[in-house]
Formats: sequence, structure tokens, C-alpha cells
Amino acid sequence: MSDPVDPVASAYLNSAVALAVENVARGGGPFGAVVVTAEGRIYGGTNRVTADNDPTAHAEVVAIRRACAELGTFDLTGSTLYASCEPCPLCVAASLWARVDAIVFAADRHDADRAGFDDTRFHEHFDGVAPAIPITAGSADDPLAPFAAWAEHPGRIDY
Amino acid sequence: MSDPVDPVASAYLNSAVALAVENVARGGGPFGAVVVTAEGRIYGGTNRVTADNDPTAHAEVVAIRRACAELGTFDLTGSTLYASCEPCPLCVAASLWARVDAIVFAADRHDADRAGFDDTRFHEHFDGVAPAIPITAGSADDPLAPFAAWAEHPGRIDY
Repeated sequence: MSDPVDPVASAYLNSAVALAVENVARGGGPFGAVVVTAEGRIYGGTNRVTADNDPTAHAEVVAIRRACAELGTFDLTGSTLYASCEPCPLCVAASLWARVDAIVFAADRHDADRAGFDDTRFHEHFDGVAPAIPITAGSADDPLAPFAAWAEHPGRIDY
Repeated sequence: MSDPVDPVASAYLNSAVALAVENVARGGGPFGAVVVTAEGRIYGGTNRVTADNDPTAHAEVVAIRRACAELGTFDLTGSTLYASCEPCPLCVAASLWARVDAIVFAADRHDADRAGFDDTRFHEHFDGVAPAIPITAGSADDPLAPFAAWAEHPGRIDY
């Protein structure tokens, strides 16, 4: 758990906030993040959704992808993600898959809402409050074929 | 809502399943997806997490990123996402931010679990059943500075 007055956490949060402010001037969204590994390596990211035509280019996702690319791994176990704003479900899920140990944020989802973003509505989808997209099962000829191929593949890398 | 015996949906799901099977042979994970736009354009994606050292390179995310890159937009309104397996929270959230209209899937989260993936555990994080990562508020000097810069930026593009 993060201590709210932890000076190390505050320093990294201030870095994430500074990245977010700079990013607005560069045509990006008002979000920044830094991944800090167990060894103290630091990887920053900023929101490039509209700048790069990539709806998944949230600051946290960009920082995670950069850290993984530079470290040559898909596993950031031991890392902490510091975000200028409370991570949306995309960024929480990216952190889970990246095996980040913990997330610490500065502004919260309600601050993001007031700035015009859909964070709370999307959190509510996952909270079961109000579904925001229909997700339904359909019929495929052999839906388990990929998993059968996976089980039989000698070179598979588990993740 | 998708009709489970909708032949068009089944055809796209079969394509997604075929992509997933092929991807295993190419060193990727056993997942495939296709984005179909309102105009009928089709963009495929496969899981490249371990192949590309990118924990966010799930099939659905790859398909969404490809569709957006090729169409030159961050907004896929009117599109449907067909996935070989029930989308994990990362892929649901990516679909929400991409403004995909609907998601249809073939295999489900329990099939993914049986193949060794953490989908159900990560769904349970969002369902509030069992938190999978600590997410805490920290203290920054000026957490709202990015949103103030955003509000004042004349060239901002809302998304």
C-alpha cells in the first residue's frame, strides 16, 4: 500500500504530472505515467490517442509498452506504475497482464470526468452498474481449436 | 444482441479462430480477432505478447490498433469486434475507448483458463471478487495541472 505522504511516490507522481502537462502542449491528452522497475529504471509515457490515432495509447499503456520494449520482456514483476490520474480499466488491465506490482495515482476518475473524459462511465461498465457495450457469445465451428493447437505446440511461451 | 446462429457472425468468428490457430504456429498466443467496420472493412489481429514483448498486444487490441492506423482515426463507431475467445478486461476496455459498437466471441473465459491463462482472475479483479493489484492514491504537488493545461489548450481534440 502507498503511504499518501511517501516522498518517493510523490516525486514519481510529480514526474508523471509534469509529463502530462508537457504532453498537452505536444498535442496529446492530459495524462502521464512512469513505470519504475525494482532496479529503479524509469520509463515514461504520455497519452497519444488522438496524436497517433490509437485509442489504446493511454499514458500507462505507452509507459508499459516502452518499458517492456526497452527491457526485452513482457513481464514487469517488481515494478510500480505511477500515473498522473487514476488508471481507467484499460490501464489497470494492462498493468495486471504486465505483472506490475502496484499502481499509485494523483488525480482521480472524477477529476478526469470533469475534464471531459469517460473514465467513470467505463469504470461503471466493469462495476456492473451500467453496461456500456453488448458482449455476446456467438457460434463458431471449432472454438477450441486455438487452445488445442496451443497445447500441442512444443515452443509455446506461457505468460 | 448477437443471434447465436447468425451466419455472418459465425463467418467472422471462424475467421478469428483461424487467425488464432495460425498464430500459434507463428509463435504467438492462441487468440485471434477481427474488427468489421460499418462499411464492411475487415482488420485482423493476433496475440503477439511474447513474440513482441508487449503485454498489451492481445489479438483484439492489435486488431483495433490496426483498424485505427489504416483508417486514420481513433474512433471505430459502427464497428463490431469478433474474437476467438471472450475478451479480457483489457480488450473490453480497448473496445470501449475505440467506440466499438458490439463484441461477439467464440470460446469463453473458462476455456481460456483451462488453457492456462489468467482471464477469470483478472475478470474477478474488476468484478470486485478479489483485487489482483493494489491501486492507491498518492500525493502530488499539483495533480490538476494537466487538466488545467487541457482546458486552456486551443488545439485540443476531444475523445
